[in-house]
Amino acid sequence: MNRLLQDLRIVEVSAFVAAPLGGMTMAQMGAEVIRIDPLGGGIDFTRWPVTRAGASLYWAGLNKAKRSLALALDKPEGREIARAIITAPGPGAGIFLTNLPPSRALDFTTLQAARTDLIMLRLVGNRDGSAAVDYTVNAASGFPLVTGPGGEPVNHVLPAWDIAAGLYLATGLLAAERHRSRTGKGQEVVVALSDVMLATVGNLGYIGDVQINGTARPAIGNDLYGSFGRDFATADGRRIMIIALTRRQWRAIGEATGLAGRLAMIGPMMDVDLDTEAGRYEARDAIGALLARWCASLSLDEIRRAFAGTGVLWGQFQDFLQLVRDDPRCSEANPLFAAVDQPGIGRYLVPGLPLDFAAAPRSTPRPAPVLGEHTDIVLSEVLGLSSAEIGRLHDEGIVAGPDGR
Amino acid sequence: MNRLLQDLRIVEVSAFVAAPLGGMTMAQMGAEVIRIDPLGGGIDFTRWPVTRAGASLYWAGLNKAKRSLALALDKPEGREIARAIITAPGPGAGIFLTNLPPSRALDFTTLQAARTDLIMLRLVGNRDGSAAVDYTVNAASGFPLVTGPGGEPVNHVLPAWDIAAGLYLATGLLAAERHRSRTGKGQEVVVALSDVMLATVGNLGYIGDVQINGTARPAIGNDLYGSFGRDFATADGRRIMIIALTRRQWRAIGEATGLAGRLAMIGPMMDVDLDTEAGRYEARDAIGALLARWCASLSLDEIRRAFAGTGVLWGQFQDFLQLVRDDPRCSEANPLFAAVDQPGIGRYLVPGLPLDFAAAPRSTPRPAPVLGEHTDIVLSEVLGLSSAEIGRLHDEGIVAGPDGR
Repeated sequence: MNRLLQDLRIVEVSAFVAAPLGGMTMAQMGAEVIRIDPLGGGIDFTRWPVTRAGASLYWAGLNKAKRSLALALDKPEGREIARAIITAPGPGAGIFLTNLPPSRALDFTTLQAARTDLIMLRLVGNRDGSAAVDYTVNAASGFPLVTGPGGEPVNHVLPAWDIAAGLYLATGLLAAERHRSRTGKGQEVVVALSDVMLATVGNLGYIGDVQINGTARPAIGNDLYGSFGRDFATADGRRIMIIALTRRQWRAIGEATGLAGRLAMIGPMMDVDLDTEAGRYEARDAIGALLARWCASLSLDEIRRAFAGTGVLWGQFQDFLQLVRDDPRCSEANPLFAAVDQPGIGRYLVPGLPLDFAAAPRSTPRPAPVLGEHTDIVLSEVLGLSSAEIGRLHDEGIVAGPDGR
Repeated sequence: MNRLLQDLRIVEVSAFVAAPLGGMTMAQMGAEVIRIDPLGGGIDFTRWPVTRAGASLYWAGLNKAKRSLALALDKPEGREIARAIITAPGPGAGIFLTNLPPSRALDFTTLQAARTDLIMLRLVGNRDGSAAVDYTVNAASGFPLVTGPGGEPVNHVLPAWDIAAGLYLATGLLAAERHRSRTGKGQEVVVALSDVMLATVGNLGYIGDVQINGTARPAIGNDLYGSFGRDFATADGRRIMIIALTRRQWRAIGEATGLAGRLAMIGPMMDVDLDTEAGRYEARDAIGALLARWCASLSLDEIRRAFAGTGVLWGQFQDFLQLVRDDPRCSEANPLFAAVDQPGIGRYLVPGLPLDFAAAPRSTPRPAPVLGEHTDIVLSEVLGLSSAEIGRLHDEGIVAGPDGR
């Protein structure tokens, strides 16, 4: 949380990961982000992981620092209020971020009629408007079939396409707002989740690999493609990654393990130059055989001591419990984090934005709102409604506050 | 490629995925991005995938639309030239993006002395400056131990942390430039790759899960966590994902497969409400058993016909070859793509930016430069050097052109 974008107001009607992450990224740089949800919450309001009482840790994680307005988007008056909030005046307002299908009366043309310089960021599944989610886009990407040992597809658990799409939305929002601040002109910015995947597959060279080489990279388990790196078991049942991308990292492995002499025998044995990435990749099984025996003879702590200060590029595998309980980076010793009281959930370690701006120092991460927490204040501040009018909207079930009514 | 940021100049000294992707994202919105590499190329210049002749499809993919300057960064005069280019005057210039260690005489303090409003974006491995790459950060994230069937860690193949970091860099760059255009003040913006991972683990609720619930999500293969979705084999040896996040998607599965009646028996059998995500998750093996039999009796084409127009959320798995050869989204029918002549490689399908800006229409994606392609023009345009001076720099091995000299 910093104050860099404090003159911006963004209205978000969203669900799941991508659009909420885009909005949260803006909120974490100080923008006022108003998330409008249907009464009772949107389709992501109870997504897992949840607490034993059913409160969504996922929803809380992706909506930090936002304001929450609960609104009957299924009623004409609810949609009218949403339109009024989205298109309210103000030089930094008039920015709408959504992954709703365009059919819900919050389309660009309607909104632009109310505010000509509207900026609308819209995430769609496929470019043609058909549905796609991280799971289907990932299946099509080619990655699951080269993840793990091969043969069977292995899905990622990290929703990587959603995360990339959310950050493209944040980038696109700032680029469009920059354009508006210079020209006075708004615009619609559309990104398709499947295009995020396709662009990334292309950016990493895999389309060229098929079209130029006529081949595709194989499934090679946890081995690095085109260089040396893989996982190893330690004597105490842990796993580590050891990697050599550069010549210096490669030399460091030999020195730190005392295996430099033996490793050097692999070059002539395999007829490769181990000072090149391609040579180490070609000889990876032989290199791995030596290192596996060395790792299996030592505990994780012994390996940590052997590698300390040597320039070996390595890391230990840990599960979520170990990450949270044992890794000092995942604690308040890291200024990324603070223990925050999240209403309805409790106090736990909450991350801020991973960007550190020297000119806009971090403040403590703000929790996610309670659904409807800011209904009244938004209606009053943004639309100038009186308390009598706000009361009527509650009575008629058009809006709800944090008590659900 | 559009013209949205055409008044910006960004200098990039980078390698691998994250910082190059951040810079390319700016270049694809029209910014002038000058990538400075050591003579002969940086440590990522030959990364795989490569062509048979050894040209890197990866490097070409991550450096599209940039200018390339080859410079002896290991010599004092080379570093002086880099400093001069980074800090050259101009309202949209003075932006430096790097993942170099700060020791190389291109640190913020030195550069800011030459240009007080300098913006510097710096990617580091860990916040304390120690090394971390996607492979080590991923090992620490907890995700590999819940990817696949469990027991053994399974690394992602998509460098998801690098991609997220690159897009955070793009977002941070635009936010810092916005701040400078309003206040005249530059700043250093730092992002640690491990913080990108930690923030994401927290954003998705997994830190809260450990600290509030005392538990962590298990490895469940390709099953969706907390909802229904998994992969199925078809009669013709293909694999598909079928997913039901919403009640409508759930109902559509029953209707499209003709299994609504049988699926409805699972509710009372398992004592769960199948209209809830948690209920479907609890009953996922029973649901999967029915759907697996149905999928195994039909070919992929038959399933496609059965699902067409029904609202079932599904997708087929495909490998990189199938994606590139068979998926119409991965072709010039998609305006994301164009066939581009990449010097040194050939003509293949190249993606642009996945963001579609209505006010800044796409033009054809530009290829990556040849290493050193823009050495002379940058020295002339940005530093105003004469051809005699440029000739001397070539003769003394301070710079090189596209011929490597």
